Amino acid sequence: MKSSLVFAHNFPKAKDIGDEVLVIYDQILAKRSKDFQKWIQSFPLSYPVSAGEELKSVAAFPKHISSIVKICENASSRKLKVLAIGGGSVGDFAGFVASILKRGVGLVHMPSTWLAAIDSAHGGKTALNVGGAKNQIGTFYPAEKIFLVKKLLLAQPAVRSFEGFGELLKISIIQGGVLWKQLSQNREITHDVLWKHLKAAIEAKNRVVQKDPEEKSGHRHLLNLGHTVGHVFEADGQIPHGVAINYGLSFALQWSLEKKIMSQSVYNKMMSAAVMGYLLSPHRDQLISTSPSKIKKYRSLLLSDKKKTQTETVRFIFVKAPGQCVIQEVGVDDILNEMCRQAEEEDIDG
Amino acid sequence: MKSSLVFAHNFPKAKDIGDEVLVIYDQILAKRSKDFQKWIQSFPLSYPVSAGEELKSVAAFPKHISSIVKICENASSRKLKVLAIGGGSVGDFAGFVASILKRGVGLVHMPSTWLAAIDSAHGGKTALNVGGAKNQIGTFYPAEKIFLVKKLLLAQPAVRSFEGFGELLKISIIQGGVLWKQLSQNREITHDVLWKHLKAAIEAKNRVVQKDPEEKSGHRHLLNLGHTVGHVFEADGQIPHGVAINYGLSFALQWSLEKKIMSQSVYNKMMSAAVMGYLLSPHRDQLISTSPSKIKKYRSLLLSDKKKTQTETVRFIFVKAPGQCVIQEVGVDDILNEMCRQAEEEDIDG
Repeated sequence: MKSSLVFAHNFPKAKDIGDEVLVIYDQILAKRSKDFQKWIQSFPLSYPVSAGEELKSVAAFPKHISSIVKICENASSRKLKVLAIGGGSVGDFAGFVASILKRGVGLVHMPSTWLAAIDSAHGGKTALNVGGAKNQIGTFYPAEKIFLVKKLLLAQPAVRSFEGFGELLKISIIQGGVLWKQLSQNREITHDVLWKHLKAAIEAKNRVVQKDPEEKSGHRHLLNLGHTVGHVFEADGQIPHGVAINYGLSFALQWSLEKKIMSQSVYNKMMSAAVMGYLLSPHRDQLISTSPSKIKKYRSLLLSDKKKTQTETVRFIFVKAPGQCVIQEVGVDDILNEMCRQAEEEDIDG
Repeated sequence: MKSSLVFAHNFPKAKDIGDEVLVIYDQILAKRSKDFQKWIQSFPLSYPVSAGEELKSVAAFPKHISSIVKICENASSRKLKVLAIGGGSVGDFAGFVASILKRGVGLVHMPSTWLAAIDSAHGGKTALNVGGAKNQIGTFYPAEKIFLVKKLLLAQPAVRSFEGFGELLKISIIQGGVLWKQLSQNREITHDVLWKHLKAAIEAKNRVVQKDPEEKSGHRHLLNLGHTVGHVFEADGQIPHGVAINYGLSFALQWSLEKKIMSQSVYNKMMSAAVMGYLLSPHRDQLISTSPSKIKKYRSLLLSDKKKTQTETVRFIFVKAPGQCVIQEVGVDDILNEMCRQAEEEDIDG
């Protein structure tokens, strides 16, 4: 199923979403904006939540779903729609709820963060965490409709644009062509730059997803570009997902050059693009440590992140050029060696 | 998706099910049979459960799914299959687990009760209960394959055949034709009679489901024949589902005659069929009480069972003749009046 996209400056009317709508929303949005608070009151059924990984914990799920079933007691299972407003965790949670409530009701997303607007609201993945392990249960359940509301997205703190940039850069390297060319010319990534490229970025992601909606052929794995080592940075350094993906992308590009998958001339051309200065500007020096205890930690993070196979290998996404990615099975030790190599190179450069 | 059916006398080999199989099974089966116990040990991953509605409680779900995620820690998400062995509650639970574990793994059913073999293992419904309310969450997730193992089904206590008969009679009245003709000639329903009609009964159910797999057009509602009042008997009288459906069917046939949807001659012909003596032989006298407090209870059970609408009406399935059902919107009070009428008639007859 393809989700339909609606780009708007302002919030839609409640009845334009549906006759019976349950809004599951990040409560911080109501605290942040009176406009939002007023608008949300136009929905008779609503369930505010605290965003974050705790929301996705299966341990908390019975309490949430009991409240939600009670709120929707008189709703018709055929007419009911869930409207999810928030970032990735709220979308994952609310999407999962919609996919199982009364064996599946309508789902509409309205992302409030760049990460969700560019990436997680699209492609139909929903998820909960089980114990400490992320996204162990979930469904493929694409939204019927996704509202991209400029007013909501631009209400984010300005610093969030660097987080959103990670997934935008990733998808434009996967897609190549016009998207990469236009994005790479920006010297700085602002809310306005993100908004300008949003539609093309979503369409690029959807193009990948449509070829492999339920991760069966492996094509969708392309979207993992920058994520293998990005997730290690995220977990080890306690940094936001989007920022970690930025560093993960930079790692993948350097390794692609080192392995001669990318030529030196393509690498130089990519690195000289205006946007790359923005990507690499924050300090990355302290991100990788080569101490034995850290390497051990990286190893266990890499192993827990990969789709389980009997071997200690990972499908890593390399880049030959914008628009040309290459999936290769690599050993976990190869990744660790490359992390050390890049850390040492950084030391010499720095 | 259509599930493929495998009829077999004995248990299949573990590796014929799949490379990586998690068996979720009713532990009573291992206690009941050494053969089963030995066979189940050929699966490296297994999770025994206690059958019943408590298994389907969402409150217990985090504990179950945490154990299951741990058991499957090293399994590949692409190869893993859940094999569900048990009756309705085990199938609903294990089917739900399969539909959300790693965003959906393979599902194979092996029903161990007639109710599951004839009805609940087919059609793809999975469910959990939320608080006291049954099947509030779930998925449509048809099994890839369903094994009907004669040895397993015939190991049930003989008394269970009356329970299985309810859904078999229901589907043969819906289907009409050869299925109804052949079934109706049996003077007694034994395990062998159920086994003999199993394939045709499943095919008849699948024919209805294929036209409306996710309950959107309303056609699938036909399968509710006998269930509206059957569920009242089940909840009020604490009788097994299959037995309650038998009485619910008898109620629906009598009401169809009373409303002249069924002609007296069709009614007489149906009632004179050999099998009907079996249907009506157990006492039904004390099933319906006309005391005001009971009527109040019936009313609240009828209202909680129906798909919520603003009105106090229910879509009731009447029978014109075998193979010809009629869906009509009736008031809850109409049902209560008819219950009283039938109870009084029973009194006069008895």
